[in-house]
Formats: sequence, structure tokens, C-alpha cells
Amino acid sequence: MPTYDRLKGFRDFYPPEMAVRREVTDTLESVARRYGFREIDTPRLEPAEMWTDKSGDDIVDELYAFEDHGGRHVTLSPELTPTVARMYAAKAQELSKPVKWFSTRPFWRYEAVQQGRFREFYQTNIDVFGSAEPEADAEVLATAADALTDLGLSADDFEFRVSHRDILGSLLRSFDADVDVRAAIRAVDKSEKVDEAEYLDLLHDAGLEFDRAREFDDLLGVDDPADLDELTDFAPNSEGLADAVGNLREVLAAADDFGVGEHCDLSLRTARGLDYYTGAVFECFDATGEIGRSVFGGGRYDDLIEEFGGQPTPAVGVAPGHAPLGLLLERAGVAPDATIETDYYVLQVGDTRPTAARIARDLRARGHVVESDVSDRSFGAQLNYADSINAETVVIVGEQDLANDEVTLKDMASGDQTTAPVDEFPGGLDRPTFDDFA
Amino acid sequence: MPTYDRLKGFRDFYPPEMAVRREVTDTLESVARRYGFREIDTPRLEPAEMWTDKSGDDIVDELYAFEDHGGRHVTLSPELTPTVARMYAAKAQELSKPVKWFSTRPFWRYEAVQQGRFREFYQTNIDVFGSAEPEADAEVLATAADALTDLGLSADDFEFRVSHRDILGSLLRSFDADVDVRAAIRAVDKSEKVDEAEYLDLLHDAGLEFDRAREFDDLLGVDDPADLDELTDFAPNSEGLADAVGNLREVLAAADDFGVGEHCDLSLRTARGLDYYTGAVFECFDATGEIGRSVFGGGRYDDLIEEFGGQPTPAVGVAPGHAPLGLLLERAGVAPDATIETDYYVLQVGDTRPTAARIARDLRARGHVVESDVSDRSFGAQLNYADSINAETVVIVGEQDLANDEVTLKDMASGDQTTAPVDEFPGGLDRPTFDDFA
Repeated sequence: MPTYDRLKGFRDFYPPEMAVRREVTDTLESVARRYGFREIDTPRLEPAEMWTDKSGDDIVDELYAFEDHGGRHVTLSPELTPTVARMYAAKAQELSKPVKWFSTRPFWRYEAVQQGRFREFYQTNIDVFGSAEPEADAEVLATAADALTDLGLSADDFEFRVSHRDILGSLLRSFDADVDVRAAIRAVDKSEKVDEAEYLDLLHDAGLEFDRAREFDDLLGVDDPADLDELTDFAPNSEGLADAVGNLREVLAAADDFGVGEHCDLSLRTARGLDYYTGAVFECFDATGEIGRSVFGGGRYDDLIEEFGGQPTPAVGVAPGHAPLGLLLERAGVAPDATIETDYYVLQVGDTRPTAARIARDLRARGHVVESDVSDRSFGAQLNYADSINAETVVIVGEQDLANDEVTLKDMASGDQTTAPVDEFPGGLDRPTFDDFA
Repeated sequence: MPTYDRLKGFRDFYPPEMAVRREVTDTLESVARRYGFREIDTPRLEPAEMWTDKSGDDIVDELYAFEDHGGRHVTLSPELTPTVARMYAAKAQELSKPVKWFSTRPFWRYEAVQQGRFREFYQTNIDVFGSAEPEADAEVLATAADALTDLGLSADDFEFRVSHRDILGSLLRSFDADVDVRAAIRAVDKSEKVDEAEYLDLLHDAGLEFDRAREFDDLLGVDDPADLDELTDFAPNSEGLADAVGNLREVLAAADDFGVGEHCDLSLRTARGLDYYTGAVFECFDATGEIGRSVFGGGRYDDLIEEFGGQPTPAVGVAPGHAPLGLLLERAGVAPDATIETDYYVLQVGDTRPTAARIARDLRARGHVVESDVSDRSFGAQLNYADSINAETVVIVGEQDLANDEVTLKDMASGDQTTAPVDEFPGGLDRPTFDDFA
């Protein structure tokens, strides 16, 4: 009699935990649908080359990669982007632009397990392809903000820290044309996680003199869009800087028009760790600071479709991870209810199955969650079970009641009982309860 | 500029294909919920030993198995049962019985790709644990039948062929105590797929004399529950036969009470290929015969939880595969609509973004699917896009209209237009259309 354990970093979702995840998923997806994002789904396994061809990516060391029975080098997907890039490239001609897609699915990375981080983790990816306009960036911000609001979070609970890769890049190049921009941006991404000396060291390693590194970091302290002129005043000849500042302002202005301005804060030090971002980027943070690290992030990645074999295609997206989002909901006291709910339990006493089954069927036809006895149990055992599944109403179908053409309705919260004519139950009522017959 | 292809036997679901799968999934899950099945979710990757420890199973050759970075022998799950058995065993004490779980997820098998069969395939598993009563079997049949009915299929479209493993086993042993029951049952499972000579050969290989094989097969021709007495009359001393016949009759009687008797046909030759079934089993077939092979199946497997390390626990379940079910829906002409639908497109002309955004936001707050321009496009390009996403109503927010405090509503089906006061749109209306203002 062997026993098996699940793998480390993987989770079993029993009904209570699944009810929470279901509510988070449904809310994210419902908001995405209302914005006109369309659901897609994608293979869980892909050619490993989609990741390994790009050398130097940390992700490669974390792949669940292997050789399949046909000798193909394959991997469980660690992220969605290469797959949607592949799908977009395959049908770019016939797709109506902009393409707006969402999907919820697990991804896998072999990495250290910690609170809110697992080796198998769920994300809802929401992306716009084919628009370089600031309204596309703002629509992604608005979709994410509305989803968090629908989950019960307010502006006191979360903030989107918005930055811009081209501002960072232009500024860096204005200091030193030979600076390693990607390394410097990775340093900015780490600035909140390491002490100042280490941060400045990292910028120095990327090619900035220490004085310049300090100056650069000072400039990143601008936190009011009106003050972004300080940057262009500082480096008036920096190629692309004025355009980037203008673009970030337009993104924030569009987010204002879209009704989510209160959730967006200018925060140039929010750089996003991944190399592939190209324009506006943002990260969602716990506004109280209790959860120190980023909950999720998103941004513009205009070069990636082309890298994966497509025509040059602007793109912007966001990918809330359900586990870190769950931590934020818990911190804010608005985590979805993990309680199992049941509208009716139809309790059989004696040989009443045909009538009990008819009633259960009629109630289900009205869309209700209805259970009945499938274990040949006693009255008391059935009532205990009805209690364990939080049944709201128990319909007792007993031989004696039936002899009087009645059933008994028991309100489980109060314990109150009353009878109802069996032929009129549920009858014309959509959701009959104790109160309808008391 | 590399291009990548998806793996053979894996599918990309673009929005139209996904809309179909979503409808099938939602219907199956909605019916399961109404019957009080609770959603769970499970790791996609499991210790490979959960399958390889049971030698001789065909499934082992089809595993996507490999060694992870930690040296664990792991596999993508080819089926759900060992996983739910593991989960049930881990919490058997605290779970309220019967345990009724469902989940929708992909599974993976490296096998030949054919119509309706893929290497990555989706199933909705629906199981009852902890009841050996015929009502549990019947509830699984009723849930499956109601789901197919909700998908638009009628009794003319599908039938559940119901058999019983213990009837087959008892009968076989009554012919010859040394017969290889599992091999003989596998032969029965193949009887419709091979010619008679081959079928009789297989029974012979399992240990039945040819005459006995023919006699056995004749007995399996019983197709009316009332005639099941022929079996007990034939082998009155066969151990377990009378009980098995009684159990099958009770399952069918309960299915009648549960309102799905018309979908259930006695068909002893329906044996199910898998070894682990122990009692009533069934397969869903296309009633017209156009699709020759089984669409999906289910049945009782009372020994499996124990085999996977749990206490002895009766269990019964069904697992509709979405791809073969989709073929049946297509054959019956009731496949879900693959068309993208959009309630409103809010079209901007000139500098009207704040008002257009406000209207889009108000309509989304009412739950509608609403798109607006995120690509800075012309009137004509926006109208073409609105048409491509099948927008029902286009709300034209133009500078001139706004000067008159109006917006224009265009009904896309008729092309009719009218104006509405901008301050009253959408106002108190839940789903305003052309007709409300014409």
C-alpha cells in the first residue's frame, strides 16, 4: 500500500482553497472580458528552444525541460509571452488589430519556494498587440486596477508605480554613451531590495562613475509628472528623452481619463527586472507597505513579437499572479470566502426517493446547488451532512409528510421548520425558503 | 528572426476555438456544481512512481516523464485518479463524506494523434468518494446526462451504455474458475472494434473454450433489465452474480428516479478498457452511430483509493473529454458558437476621449463587453474594427455631437442611427440600444 507525496512547490487545491482561487480568477477574467479582451488558451509544453535560443536569460536555469519520446527538446512554459508571440506571428495577417487576448493558466519554474511563490504558479495574462498608442498602456492599467477594485481593494490598499524604460535608458546614455543600459536598469530594479552602497556599486559596474550614479539616482526621485521637465532640462540633448517623457505623461493622462488615475503613481525607480520591456512599465505594490515586494507587474514590450519571428508589433500587457495577489487580498482583509455553500439539501426519510429526486431536479433546474442522499443514511446523519456543507434550506421528504401531501422546510440558520404542499414545491417560486411557507 | 512551431498533438486555442471550449467547460462545471460537486485543482506534475509502480499499465509507455533539477523522477499527469486518490487519502479523516469533487484540466499522453485525440487533452473529472450505494452511480450518470442535455443534445443524440464489471467477472468465473478475468474483459471491450473471429480468439486466449466463449457472448446480449434473470438462471451458483445483477438493476432504477433513465441502456458488452473498474460502468455513444467510438466513459472503482495508500473507499466517477465531446456536438449540429461578441464599441471622433471613456466605463459597470479606440484610428477604421468584433451597438462620440450635448447610437445589424442626450447615456438604462432612443 504505497503512499505518495506531492512535489515540493506544487499545491493541492481542496474545495475551500479552490473557492478562493476561483473567485480571484473569475473576477480577473470578468473584468478583462468587459474591456473586450478575448480568451485564448495555449500549450503547456513548448519547444525548449523558445527559451534556450536566447542565451543569458536566468529563466533557462529554472526550466522544467526534457526530451520527449520523439526526441524533441521540450519544456513546461515558464511564462506566456513567447507562446503568444508565436501564436500572433502565425496568424498576424488575418487577426483584426488591435489583438486583445487574456488567458489564465499555470506556469512552472524550478526555483526556491517561499511565501506566495511556488514552482507551479497561476497567472492571468492580459495583453494588447498592435497598438503603440498610450491608450493601450492605459487600458492595461485600467483593466488591472478595475480587477483589483472588483476584488474589494481600494486606493488605500494598492498603488501602481509607473516608470518608463526609455526615460531610464535615455538618461543613462546621456551620462555615458557606453553604459550597459540593461545592467543599469537591473540595478534600478534592485534599488529597493539592496542597501545604497550596493545599489551604487551595481550602477558603477554597469559603467557609471559614482558621482554620475548618485546624480542619476537623484533624478529618478521625481514623483510628480509636472516635474518631469527637470529631466529634459538636465539632459536637453539626450536622444529620445523628450519623447519618452511625453509618452509617459500621455499614458498617465489616458489612465486619468480611463478613471484609474488615483491608482497610478509616477515612480521612475520602478524598473521591472526583465530585459524585454521597452516603454512604460509598472508594478503593483501594497499601499500600506506591509507586503514589501511587488505583487505583480506589466508594461510595454514592443520588440518581442519580432524576436519570436513575427513582424514588428507593439505590445503591452500585465500578468497578475494569483498567489501574490492572494497575499494582498488577505493583508487587506478582503480575501474571498473559502466556505462551501449549498442552497438546498433534500433529505429522504423512508422510501421517498422518487419525490425527493423530483424536488432536487426542479430546484437544480432553477440553477441552485442541491444535494441529496446518495449514501443510504439515517435522518441524523443526513442532517449532519447538510450542516457540514452549509446547506441554507433542508427539504425533508418523509413518508408521513408525503401521506399528507406535504414536505417540511427547515431553515438551517434558525432551525425553524414549516411545511409546504409537495405539489407546490418548488412550484412557481424561483428560490423557495422557509419564509415563503411560514 | 527564429520561428517556432508548436508541438505535434498540442493545440493553440485562438478566441473562436476557445469560445467553444469555454462554453463546453462552463456547462459541464455548472451542472456539476448544481449537483453539489465542489471544484478542486491539482498539480500538473506528479511523482512518476504514482504510475510506474503499477507495472504492466499501457499508460506508462505514454508518459511525459523526466528527471527534474532536484533529481526527482516526475511526470505530467496522464489521468486524474491517482492524484485525487492521493488527496483523498491525505485528508480522509477530516473530509465530510461523501466527498464530491470536480475539476477541469489538461492531461498528457504521448500517443498517436487522430481526430478528437491529442497529446494534450482536456477533461472534466467528476467523482463521488465514500458511497457504495447505487444512488452514487446514478448521480454520476444524471450529472453527465444533464450536462449533455444542457449542451443541447437530446436522447436522440446520445446514449449511455451501462454494464457491470462484477456481472462480467462472475459469469466468466462460472464458466471456468481459472479464466483470466481482466484479459477476458479487455476482449469484451474490444468486441465492437474487431471481427467476431478475433474477438472469440481473444476470449479463448483469456482461458475460455471456444464453445464457452460463444455461450458467454450470447448471454451478454441481454438488453432489458427484466431479462437479467436469464444470467442468474444460467449460473445460479455463480458467486456474486446475483448481487451484481441486483446492483445493476438498482443503479438503473435510481437513474430512472433521477430523471435520466431514457438516456441509459443496458449493454453488458460495454466493458470499459481500464482494469481498475469494479462495478457499474458506462460509456457514452453517439446514438446515430455516425461517431463509432465511445465519446467518454465512467464507472465505479472501489479499490483504487486503497491501492494509492488510502483506506478502502468506494468511488464512482465520469470524465468527459472535451475534444471527443466537441465532435459529438458538431455531429448533432449543436456545437457552441465560435463567434466573438461585443455589446458596445465606443467610437471617438476628434478630441472626445474623456467623454468616450466615461461612457465606456459606465457601460462596463453594467457588465457589458465594451471596446473603444486604443490605436488613434480614423472614423472608418474604427467602424471596420467594430464590425470585425461583431459590436451590437456603436456609440459615436464626436466633437460636433458633443457640442449639442448628444452622442449618436448606431445599430450595427440594421445600420440605423439616432442620437441620445450625452448626460442620459447610459443613464438609468441597463442596456441602452438604438431602440431606446429612436
